[in-house]
Amino acid sequence: MNVDALRAEFPVLDRLAYLNAGSIGPLARRTTEAMAARLAAELEGGRGGVAQFLDVVELRGRVRAALAAAIHALPENVALTTSTTDACNLVLAGLELGPDDEIVTTDVEHFGLLGPLAVSEARVRVAEVRDRPAAEAFDIIRSEVGPRTRLLALSHVAWTTGQVLPLRELREATGVPMLVDGAQSVGALPVRADGFDYYTVSCQKWLCGPDGAGALYVADPDALPVARPSYFSQDAFETDGSFTAKAGAARFDTGWIPPAALAGLEAALSGLPEWRFERAAAMAALCRERIAERFEVVTEPDQATLVSWRAEGDAAEASVRAWEQGVVIRDMPGRGWLRASCGYWTNEDDIDRLAAALA
Amino acid sequence: MNVDALRAEFPVLDRLAYLNAGSIGPLARRTTEAMAARLAAELEGGRGGVAQFLDVVELRGRVRAALAAAIHALPENVALTTSTTDACNLVLAGLELGPDDEIVTTDVEHFGLLGPLAVSEARVRVAEVRDRPAAEAFDIIRSEVGPRTRLLALSHVAWTTGQVLPLRELREATGVPMLVDGAQSVGALPVRADGFDYYTVSCQKWLCGPDGAGALYVADPDALPVARPSYFSQDAFETDGSFTAKAGAARFDTGWIPPAALAGLEAALSGLPEWRFERAAAMAALCRERIAERFEVVTEPDQATLVSWRAEGDAAEASVRAWEQGVVIRDMPGRGWLRASCGYWTNEDDIDRLAAALA
Repeated sequence: MNVDALRAEFPVLDRLAYLNAGSIGPLARRTTEAMAARLAAELEGGRGGVAQFLDVVELRGRVRAALAAAIHALPENVALTTSTTDACNLVLAGLELGPDDEIVTTDVEHFGLLGPLAVSEARVRVAEVRDRPAAEAFDIIRSEVGPRTRLLALSHVAWTTGQVLPLRELREATGVPMLVDGAQSVGALPVRADGFDYYTVSCQKWLCGPDGAGALYVADPDALPVARPSYFSQDAFETDGSFTAKAGAARFDTGWIPPAALAGLEAALSGLPEWRFERAAAMAALCRERIAERFEVVTEPDQATLVSWRAEGDAAEASVRAWEQGVVIRDMPGRGWLRASCGYWTNEDDIDRLAAALA
Repeated sequence: MNVDALRAEFPVLDRLAYLNAGSIGPLARRTTEAMAARLAAELEGGRGGVAQFLDVVELRGRVRAALAAAIHALPENVALTTSTTDACNLVLAGLELGPDDEIVTTDVEHFGLLGPLAVSEARVRVAEVRDRPAAEAFDIIRSEVGPRTRLLALSHVAWTTGQVLPLRELREATGVPMLVDGAQSVGALPVRADGFDYYTVSCQKWLCGPDGAGALYVADPDALPVARPSYFSQDAFETDGSFTAKAGAARFDTGWIPPAALAGLEAALSGLPEWRFERAAAMAALCRERIAERFEVVTEPDQATLVSWRAEGDAAEASVRAWEQGVVIRDMPGRGWLRASCGYWTNEDDIDRLAAALA
């Protein structure tokens, strides 16, 4: 499939220069058709029959396998969650860190990761990488790691700066367990979860899935207590709630995900073009070049699929002006930055429209 | 609106004797139409514009207010969750009970409540009400309450026996904080959350909403720590994740709920008939009488909208046989019981079909 044929699957691309998959991705027609078909079946045939429940269990299994494949992991290491925030909360609740423990994170993280860190009892150490060259990130983060560090909690791709953090090098150099916020990486660039301890997936961004679904890779499910059980967590339970946990990471499933969302996600994950990562990287590079002609770019070359730059004047107002011209980007609150998200579906015309909207 | 006109809004009622709202309710056409309209708008117009985000924030506010009204509470005491399980986990995580604390529950509860109790550090005491007359429940539960009891964790209506538990009397007699599992009460019978400490709402059962949405009433939001923050929990945050919690129970919002689900829920909650609770009670009474003609009924008279009885032979097989005859009920795993759920949409013909399917 070529780019034009692929773009035709995403109706929003006909209308807008849609450059905000970093918030929430475009939807393909096959995705909403699968959702609508499921909803229609539920309307007509009900949702509460035994056969329907068994069908949902199978659908969960297929989606789990598809998400595992997207991060080169095995299904038994993947839990279904509602979001990356949900997944981060799950990990921190399970780890039960105490006041003598330390977590190392950075100053480019999303609240979906930071909030769960803050409500743990551990001390949070913040490596200040935001205003430093990407090449220095390894040393800056590593210098915060000490004998009390129990967790490295880092994004693969920073939602603010677009920077790719040196995760694998840090994991190997420190030996400290790592929770990776994969919200801006999975679907945007090739991801392998193996070698990490916990890796989150957001389905509604770069995977272009329905909202309300996510996943969590857990390298060693038996080593993390189930801190937030759902009906799907157990094979059997007693009247006091004590339960036999399901095998594998399925024990961490945080609950029911609407079957229509699962069906839409299954459709979204099918038939993705082989060339998607190269194409997305090329479009991000092109976008960065065009922005750099006129603005101070925050994102260094050869990072991921986000491009951030310093706005002239008020960034929030600039994003509204762009919106009024059919260009969807977002501002970074408190920073005075704008951010464009380039996917494999992005074309040169989208970037021309962005440049024109900023002129 | 009369019953026939109302039934015409639920297409599944044309096809099936749908008696399983206790698992998941029937969907009205207006509910899925609102969902489909939202999905279509997202497909064509994208999901990531500033205006769209602000619209979702408003929609969340309207749904919060509608759910608050459904339990006679104020919106500032209501958090949006994904389910009752989600809400119970939220409360237990916030309470941070220790090994010297005790929780009193019963032997008729759902794992959505029991699981969260089990992963707290508190000792769980189980009041054995299941095989006793409903009139004895107060004494049996109260006798488990002692000086170490920190929480009463009880269903308003037991999903297994259909029994209404004497919640208000227990709350007043013991003075112990109470978490109420409202999965089988909200939408099925009149509910007032005031006077309780925590009260959960399931939207996909008796409220006939989309799946994936729920709520939690919190009487005193300032008294419960935010144990599971989402982006919606905070007004501002620092780079180490420390945050200023939102005012009221909105700080407990567990995350993004798909706007299509919110729109469907708003539609489902609109235009409910005044006579719904009386009608549902009358249909449950009729159902119970018909079942009692041939079976040993578990549910006592004058409870709520669930009717359970002992199956002849294998209960799971009996529910499959009923399904094959277009009658949707469920079995209670491990008990040999069957359960029928009667809503305000149920009519005499549904109950005739149930009786015929069991013959």
